[in-house]
This record gives sequence, structure tokens and C-alpha cells, in this order.
Amino acid sequence: MEFVIIGGDAAGMSAASRAKRSNPDLNVTVLEMSRDVSYSACGMPYNIADADRPIEDLVVRKADTFREKQGINLLTGHRAQALNLSQKTVSGTRASGESFTRPYDKLLIATGASAIVPNLPGFDLSGVFSLKSLDDGRKIKAYIKEKDVRKVVIIGMGYIALEMCEALRSRSIEVDLVKPRPVFLPWMDEQLSETVKAQLAAHKVGFFPGHVLERIESSEQDAGRLKVICSDLTLTGDLVLVAVGVMPNSQLAAEAGLELGINNAIAVDRQLMTSSEDIFAAGDCADAYHVVTGRKTYIPLALRANRAGWAVADNVCGKEMNLPGIAGTAVFRIFDLEVARCGLTSREAAQAGFDPVAVTIKTRSRAHAHPGSKIIQIHMVGDRKEGRLLGTQMVGEEGVAHRINAAVVALHSQMTVSGFAQSDLAYAPPFGPVWDPLITAANQLIKKM
Amino acid sequence: MEFVIIGGDAAGMSAASRAKRSNPDLNVTVLEMSRDVSYSACGMPYNIADADRPIEDLVVRKADTFREKQGINLLTGHRAQALNLSQKTVSGTRASGESFTRPYDKLLIATGASAIVPNLPGFDLSGVFSLKSLDDGRKIKAYIKEKDVRKVVIIGMGYIALEMCEALRSRSIEVDLVKPRPVFLPWMDEQLSETVKAQLAAHKVGFFPGHVLERIESSEQDAGRLKVICSDLTLTGDLVLVAVGVMPNSQLAAEAGLELGINNAIAVDRQLMTSSEDIFAAGDCADAYHVVTGRKTYIPLALRANRAGWAVADNVCGKEMNLPGIAGTAVFRIFDLEVARCGLTSREAAQAGFDPVAVTIKTRSRAHAHPGSKIIQIHMVGDRKEGRLLGTQMVGEEGVAHRINAAVVALHSQMTVSGFAQSDLAYAPPFGPVWDPLITAANQLIKKM
Repeated sequence: MEFVIIGGDAAGMSAASRAKRSNPDLNVTVLEMSRDVSYSACGMPYNIADADRPIEDLVVRKADTFREKQGINLLTGHRAQALNLSQKTVSGTRASGESFTRPYDKLLIATGASAIVPNLPGFDLSGVFSLKSLDDGRKIKAYIKEKDVRKVVIIGMGYIALEMCEALRSRSIEVDLVKPRPVFLPWMDEQLSETVKAQLAAHKVGFFPGHVLERIESSEQDAGRLKVICSDLTLTGDLVLVAVGVMPNSQLAAEAGLELGINNAIAVDRQLMTSSEDIFAAGDCADAYHVVTGRKTYIPLALRANRAGWAVADNVCGKEMNLPGIAGTAVFRIFDLEVARCGLTSREAAQAGFDPVAVTIKTRSRAHAHPGSKIIQIHMVGDRKEGRLLGTQMVGEEGVAHRINAAVVALHSQMTVSGFAQSDLAYAPPFGPVWDPLITAANQLIKKM
Repeated sequence: MEFVIIGGDAAGMSAASRAKRSNPDLNVTVLEMSRDVSYSACGMPYNIADADRPIEDLVVRKADTFREKQGINLLTGHRAQALNLSQKTVSGTRASGESFTRPYDKLLIATGASAIVPNLPGFDLSGVFSLKSLDDGRKIKAYIKEKDVRKVVIIGMGYIALEMCEALRSRSIEVDLVKPRPVFLPWMDEQLSETVKAQLAAHKVGFFPGHVLERIESSEQDAGRLKVICSDLTLTGDLVLVAVGVMPNSQLAAEAGLELGINNAIAVDRQLMTSSEDIFAAGDCADAYHVVTGRKTYIPLALRANRAGWAVADNVCGKEMNLPGIAGTAVFRIFDLEVARCGLTSREAAQAGFDPVAVTIKTRSRAHAHPGSKIIQIHMVGDRKEGRLLGTQMVGEEGVAHRINAAVVALHSQMTVSGFAQSDLAYAPPFGPVWDPLITAANQLIKKM
């Protein structure tokens, strides 16, 4: 049987490895358009932070390992361009220019997502980058070195923008953050987002929300510098990073007539099957079920991509695997702060038909009288009708990144806020108060419900 | 209505405060035999670690605050000695020697636990201490200062013993640990307990398991020093700490004819009611349900005590409150290690009628190629019959203390290992691998089930 995979990143290579491991007789072919496979994309900001580390440190497994040790027919430099569903073939072009056509019995589309680049003048200038592929990281790193970059303008204020902000500041590179929307982190409770904002100020980051972008220009006076021009503001830097979000690479699927879902991602069921029964989709190109709403969502993150790759492999190999879905979990670090979320915001909850009620608390990361305690802020959302826990956000200098996972599991279990408040969470003075901050938040929320 | 509480520590004062808050007309009386109420007992080792901090830093709320601000009739120096169930009275003796008798409508027994002291010669010598009450901490601290203690022998190797070991080493005081049983941490998987053991060696702690104690003697040659004499070993120190466990203070309840349960703790139902309907028990003197087995257990820890105090208050005030129980969660720090557990060991699981299967894994605390990564070891137990997650143990230099809580919530939700493995746990390179260590452990465990 021919199992063909389009895309050799997280979802694609996870599927390839697991399918070959569980069924060594399967012919597994991966068509990857670039030369890079199996790298930690999320690690790029941290790698860029260190001038001396090669970007190739992020490669988890080399192409030859997949080929020689695992017996996967990994074809780099192969760009898939068309699917023929009736003949069950993928065709495309090699880096050398030759065209190719490959038959499949089962196909996985794991084409990932692309950085969104605004359709405005100057976004194609030299020195303007996105950060999505390993090659993007490679080019940014080389450019910083070559041009001795001292100042970067980042367009966007999402996870990547903030992680890159930290990375660049750690190299003493100045950073300005700019974006059109006036609200800083629109999914975050305002008290918490103010704390994150203060962290940016403390690290001398230029902060310019609410400025509509018009174009990027090369500076006339100062060759090599770039001017980011908004309607009411001009920012200048040696490099511009565009980090305004990603969109699923679903064009190939759409052109073949496969159904698209939310945000134009490829629509898949719980087995990752597309609207065509021999074709699966996984990773940043596909949608997912949200465990809180039970509805489709598009939140492209690494764990889901890997997990979906595994699930496709199982389904291709005849081991039926249904994925429950995602909980909307995310975590990032910004300087001294850990920021985490899971589930729904009040607005998302209302849109999904819940009757949300929320609370925001401020508590400590360690026990009463224990030295070194930091502030933890929690925003928690519950449903007044059924009592369910719907979402949690957390910000603090310690004890946030892993603590969120207790709330994540509660969301998977459809726990009520009252039930969650009874969890026997771990306590020792160096790690938290007797009443864990999550329990305190839940107890406060119960009072409002 | 008269609500009388025996014991002014975690459970007792939690109940008093919450009852008075929710029903200001209630007469709430607390009978506390010592002079200390509402202090963080768990914080004592960390306080003792700092010679300059007064032990009173651990007092969360002063007696006068309870009396004046909260309107609680808090009677310190009142030792309850007998209950009369038919007349509904508590009688006892004041510190001054006078006797007292108080009527109650509802009674809470929150007498806590006492440190176990072996019935062997010399355990009553000056310089031999337990660490249970604030006064114990006060005396130990004063003794260390007064006698310029340079060497301590700790009898026992449980949480308190290990936390005190760390505290004393941080003051450059030498420590020997000794106990009769040959197995170091009997509830812990051997691979994990070896890691903890290595940590003791790295911090130059004398480690002597498997030595049967015979007596403690004052040293003849060296006045003030103490000799801990085992059948085949003698250890010498300036101070001896006895930390071999605690036993519930249930004598008062037993003498009144109340039913005792596991480990001679006072038997209570999910509403914390004893075998007499107007009498509740909460905290370290009472037993609890285990959420995994559904059976009674005795694991006296701080969060349960506080939570049980609240639940009693609710039940006394007519708001029916049933506690689901505890998950056997515990966490402690020993030098550079975080150690955590929840749920059952394989042995406990087999005893409870499960068909346990376990796995032990070693993984990293941060993402591939992220600097500063540490090793995390996880031991996970599941049930082969029903597929349920039964328990988790974890050891590592970072990312353990809060990570355990995801498994705790899974135990409360009676999740299967497969279900838990699908949790959308948080991922960012500084905080863990894409597949969280807990998910990796669950995935490995699934293969064995």
C-alpha cells in the first residue's frame, strides 16, 4: 500500500515515522518542498537569541535518518501542486524543475501554515522577514549578523512577536512593536494584559498598538534601514519582522475540491479524515474540535500537529484513532513572565452559547511567609447555567507554565468549577500557598455563579 | 446556636472563620490547648533554615484578630479532656489549672496529629525534639542557637525529615539520616528514589537506612552531645530530631465512643460527620476518602485540613457540603530536586483490587535543543482492566511540583490513561518538550496495557 504524505514537518514526519514503525511493509513517501524536515519551529526565537548557535541545532532528526534508518522515502525539494482524486495521484515539480506524479492509496496533507504578509507596498523589501520555516530563521540570523542589526521593528504582538521581542532584547537589539488593533492581547483579561505590557516597558520595548500600517520604505538618508510607515507614525529599524499570524496552506486541498472549514483550514473529522475518505489532513493546515465547545476551531500549535500525525498513521494502519480535540492551551514566556491560557474567554464562551461569568484574582506563588514569592494573576471563566469550567488565563513570574495544565485536564473532563475547586492539588511552601492559586480562583468564581 | 471547635490550627480555625462569616449570629468557640493558632506548620523547616527570622513569621492570623475582628470566642490554653455526648458538653482544664465545661449544639473535633515518638530509652532527653507544633519549631530554633548546634541526627526519612535535612544543611549544619527500614522511600519507584538518594550524597548527608534503633544516650565524654545507638551503629550529634511519622489525636473521640477508622483516625463521612450526628471531625485527626479507590485512607496534609474545616462550617451552617476526597497528592523539595506524587503505587493499587501496570521513563524538562534542560523521571501506574490512570510519581530539578497537578485532576475525573494521553497540555520550549513528560509517560504506559 502506498501512503503518501505532503509536507515533512511536525504532522507529516510524525505520521511517516509512526506508520512505518507500526507497519514496516507500508510504502511511505514524504514530499517536502524545502530541504528541511523535522525541526523545532517553536525553538527558533530561542535559537536566534544565541548568536553563536547554528539554526541547525533545531533539527530533531536528519533527513538521512528517516531514509536510511526508518525506511521512509523522503523526497525533499518536491513541491506538490495538484491532486487527482479519481486517479489518486499527487503531481508537482521538483526543485530541479522536472515534474513528478505519484500514486497513493492513502494520502496525508500536512502542508502546514504560512505567515500572513499584508498586501501593502514594501513588504517584499530586503530586510523584511517572516518567521515560519527554518529557512526564515536561518535568513534572519544571517541578516542580523551581516548587517549588524541594532534595531528591529516587529509588526504584530502575538506569541511569535513577543518571543522574538525577548530574543532580540537579549542580544541588546532595540525593538519596537507595532500593530493596527488598539487592544494589546485581545484574548486576555485586561488586568493580566496590563502586567504583560508593563513587562515590555521594563525591558525598554517600544510599544505602538493602534497604528494602521501603510507601507515599508527603504530609508533614503540611511541606506539599508527600513521605515515602517503608519498613518500617524513612522518607525525605523535595520530589520522588520512581520508576525501578524498564520493562515493554513489549504489551497492544494481546496483546488482538489476538499471541504474547507473554519478559517479556511482543511475540514477534518475526529479521525483526521477530510471530505474524501482516502485523504487525511493534519497539522497547521487542518481544523480541530474544541473540547469545551465541541465545535470546530483553528488553533495551529505543535502538540496538536504531532498528535494528529500519529492519529493519521494509526488510522491508515487500521487502528482506529479518534482525537477528542484541543483545549485551546497556549503558554509563552516574555522576559520574566510566564503567560498561559486554556479554554475560552468570556466572549468566546458567550458566542458558543454559554452563560459566562468570570473572575480575576491576584495571589502569591509561594506559601505565606515563604521567601521569594511572586504575584500570580488568574482570570477564570465558568458557565452559570451548567457550572462548567470554561477557561483559565494566568500570568506570573513563576508557577504559571505548568500550573495551567490542571485546568486543561479539567476542561477535557468537562469538570464543573465546583468540582475543580475540590482538586487535591499539590502543596509545599516553596511551590505555592496551601490553597493553590487555581483553587482560590475557582472558589472566588463559585461565589459569582 | 453554639458551635464549639476543639483545636485552633488549620481545620479548626478554617471552620471557625468560615462559619462565622456565613452565619454571624452563630456563637463560635474554639478551645486550643496551646497559645498558638493559625500558623503555617509546613513552613517550619524553611523558617528554621533562616537563623534570623522569628518563628512567629509563620503565624497567618493573630489570636486577637480572630477575637476582635471576626468575633470568634477563641480560648487558648484550654485543653479539652472529655466529651459527654448525651449532655452535649466538652470539659477540660485551663492552663491555669481550673476546669471548664462548655455546652455545644454542634461540635468539631480538630485535634490534629502528634509526632510519633518511639517508646525507647533516651527519647525524652534534652536536645531530642519532634517537629509538629509551632512551639516545637520555636524550641528547636532556640536550641540550635543556644548550643551552637553543628551536627543533627534525624531519625526518619519522610517529608519532614528530608525538608529539615535541607534546612539544616543550608545552615552548614551536618546531618545524619537514620531509620530502621532498609528501603529509602518505600512508596517510590526505585529508579526515582535512587535519584533522591544521590541528591543526599551530593549534599554530604549521612545516610543510614536499615538500622534498628535501641536508645539515645547523653555522651559521657562530651557533655551536651547525644548518641543515637542502633544495634550495629552509633551516631553522634548535638541535636536529635525524631521524624518517624504522625498519629491522629483521636483519644478524646475514642473515649467518648466515637468510631475510629483507618490508622485509628476518627471515622468521618463525606460531610465530615463522625458516628455521632452533631459531631464533626476534620484535619489530621480524621480519615478521608481516596478518590482513586473510593475507600478510606489516612494521609494528613494541610490542604485537606483547611478544606475539611470549610466543609464542616458549611454543613453546620446548613449548606450541605460533601467532599469527594483526596488524591494522595504530595510534593516536597530536597535540595535541587522537586519530588511529587499522586494516587496509588502499584502495591497499593493491587491491594485495592486493581490490576496495576507501571512504567518508568526518563525525559527532559525543556524542548529539544533548548538550553538548561534537566532530567525528569516519571513513574506512572494504570489499571489493565479498566484502563484508568491510578497514580504518578515524578522527580526532577524543575517542572515537577506543578506538573503533577495535571495527573491529580485526571485522578479526580477517573480518566483513563488513554484519555489523559490526549490532554492538550501546554507547550513552549522553555517549559517542556512538545510531548509533555506526562504525555510521554502515558503513551509508554498505554503500550504495556
